[in-house]
Amino acid sequence: MTQSTAPATAASGAKPTLNSIAAATGVSRQTVSNVVNDPSRVAEPTRGIVESEIRRVGYRPSAAARQLRTQRSGLLGFRMRAVADGINGSILDRLLHALTERAHERGYAILVFAAADDDAEIAAYDDLRATNALDGFLLTSTNHGDRRSDWLAAQGIPFVAFGRPWGRDDAAHSRDHDWIDIDGGHGTAEAVRALAADGARRIGLIGWPEGSGAGDDRADGFRRACAELGLEGDLIERAEDSFESGQESAERLVGRGAEAIVCVSDSLALGAVARMRALGRHDVMARIIGFDDTPVARAIGISSVDQPIEQAARAMLDLLVHRIEHPQAARTDGPPALLLPTVRRRTVA
Amino acid sequence: MTQSTAPATAASGAKPTLNSIAAATGVSRQTVSNVVNDPSRVAEPTRGIVESEIRRVGYRPSAAARQLRTQRSGLLGFRMRAVADGINGSILDRLLHALTERAHERGYAILVFAAADDDAEIAAYDDLRATNALDGFLLTSTNHGDRRSDWLAAQGIPFVAFGRPWGRDDAAHSRDHDWIDIDGGHGTAEAVRALAADGARRIGLIGWPEGSGAGDDRADGFRRACAELGLEGDLIERAEDSFESGQESAERLVGRGAEAIVCVSDSLALGAVARMRALGRHDVMARIIGFDDTPVARAIGISSVDQPIEQAARAMLDLLVHRIEHPQAARTDGPPALLLPTVRRRTVA
Repeated sequence: MTQSTAPATAASGAKPTLNSIAAATGVSRQTVSNVVNDPSRVAEPTRGIVESEIRRVGYRPSAAARQLRTQRSGLLGFRMRAVADGINGSILDRLLHALTERAHERGYAILVFAAADDDAEIAAYDDLRATNALDGFLLTSTNHGDRRSDWLAAQGIPFVAFGRPWGRDDAAHSRDHDWIDIDGGHGTAEAVRALAADGARRIGLIGWPEGSGAGDDRADGFRRACAELGLEGDLIERAEDSFESGQESAERLVGRGAEAIVCVSDSLALGAVARMRALGRHDVMARIIGFDDTPVARAIGISSVDQPIEQAARAMLDLLVHRIEHPQAARTDGPPALLLPTVRRRTVA
Repeated sequence: MTQSTAPATAASGAKPTLNSIAAATGVSRQTVSNVVNDPSRVAEPTRGIVESEIRRVGYRPSAAARQLRTQRSGLLGFRMRAVADGINGSILDRLLHALTERAHERGYAILVFAAADDDAEIAAYDDLRATNALDGFLLTSTNHGDRRSDWLAAQGIPFVAFGRPWGRDDAAHSRDHDWIDIDGGHGTAEAVRALAADGARRIGLIGWPEGSGAGDDRADGFRRACAELGLEGDLIERAEDSFESGQESAERLVGRGAEAIVCVSDSLALGAVARMRALGRHDVMARIIGFDDTPVARAIGISSVDQPIEQAARAMLDLLVHRIEHPQAARTDGPPALLLPTVRRRTVA
């Protein structure tokens, strides 16, 4: 290996260390170590200052050194799902990107694997623990009566889910296992409030078929906001997630008198906008709000509910690393976290 | 662990084995083993028949058994890049999904990691080999004078790149290292031919700024097809990849007399369609072809060049596994592969 291809960080001179970061930020080496290994122990603004310096100089803990010290592999498992064909398909991809970035900052890497269903995912956990000594798992797409979390808990394997334990009483406050989620119902409720503030009285919802945790949660938020504002809350069409469904459902909703439409995905919203344009209903077209704030919604100018996916990924990763590195800590010290989405308002071009 | 959560395959009775698959397809156990471990050794139609049976019963080689036998980790490294903000951002995500699926079928898993730049990527190779004994690497976004491939080759570490060795003489036939790529120039050439067959004579291109291997290749294909057909080949606008650039470049092209437009991405095509609609140029709007065949292009009805990403992923993964499992084989037995994209024709709604 020649010098010109030597591993990085040459640009900034010597390789950054805990000591160099401590010197640059005026804190102790132990404080820097805490920010790296257990950030919850360091208060703001110190934590923020040290974290920006860490990012600026590109410091990361040596995986080899950590492995020697801890006997851990530094690997976290993540099941890769099939590519979703809708324009919203990228939400789990965005999550994985952000998890990978945060894992890197914490000195871990992500192992992705395929599995046909939840049972195959459990079999893969077993196999990957045996072969590659994975330290923990990041679960997505939690469902009613999820067997994966039961199995992992029974084995004592650290894991954090993206998604509430649906189907348990009061899932939003359940501590049955560690999870991070985004409050979808808050998102649809905020969308209703934004449209009502704009003067709309008859607001419709294009939702997903009943029975999915996330879909039902978004429909609940819609109804809750309508009730608060004294609006009719049953202008609801439920459909599979697609552009075509968005077109058809939007036409049915305006047939039922809707003046504005909340959609649980940008695929549906894109279809709704196209159909309203085709029908010459520019009044309704200007009052459609999608979900996920995809690049397409931004390009076309569709208002959309923005999910704080990067923040969720960071919280998941930090919580999982905490469980791995502090196996004896009480689980009550890590409360469930429900992050709030916000509505990005735009005008359709 | 209770029986109800036992690892999979309970539905079909006993767990599938090489023997059960051999019995079901009427071939020898060794043939099944060859299909699993070195498919190039088995001729069609036998290979296809055995592969469908393998998929049908969900067979996969035990990673633990393979690891014991081979002393390999079964892990392949893949650098995760930042989320691209355009609607084409998902092409590498699609590649990763398909690589993960194929790795699963071959008994491997993918380790994804973040890196700020190519030097940091090289540092990560070094680190990951030391800590997790990775068997090989899958490279993406090859560039002129790529240092990563030089470093890996010098270390004798197996790798396959998605992308030609740009900047070498005759990159499309270079055997400097193993690579798989999709022939982008063929894609733009096919787009020109499709528009010419439709009666267009003055065809424009919205390309990327000069200097990127993939971008220059697509511009070359455009010019080549124009020359073949006796059309003017310099109706070219170059722009950063965005919806807004697509709008502006399309307006400039029609100002220069373009009757039809080829775009090197669907983001650009979406912008071009929106601006032609706004200008009332429905004649041009119906003759715009994008690139990547994204879900949005399908939804809006934009014709687009479809890249065979799943096929590329399969070829990459199989070639890398071959290198790992046959370290002594001559490299000339694995020729570079340039896969051909096709144009999907549609009508804008």
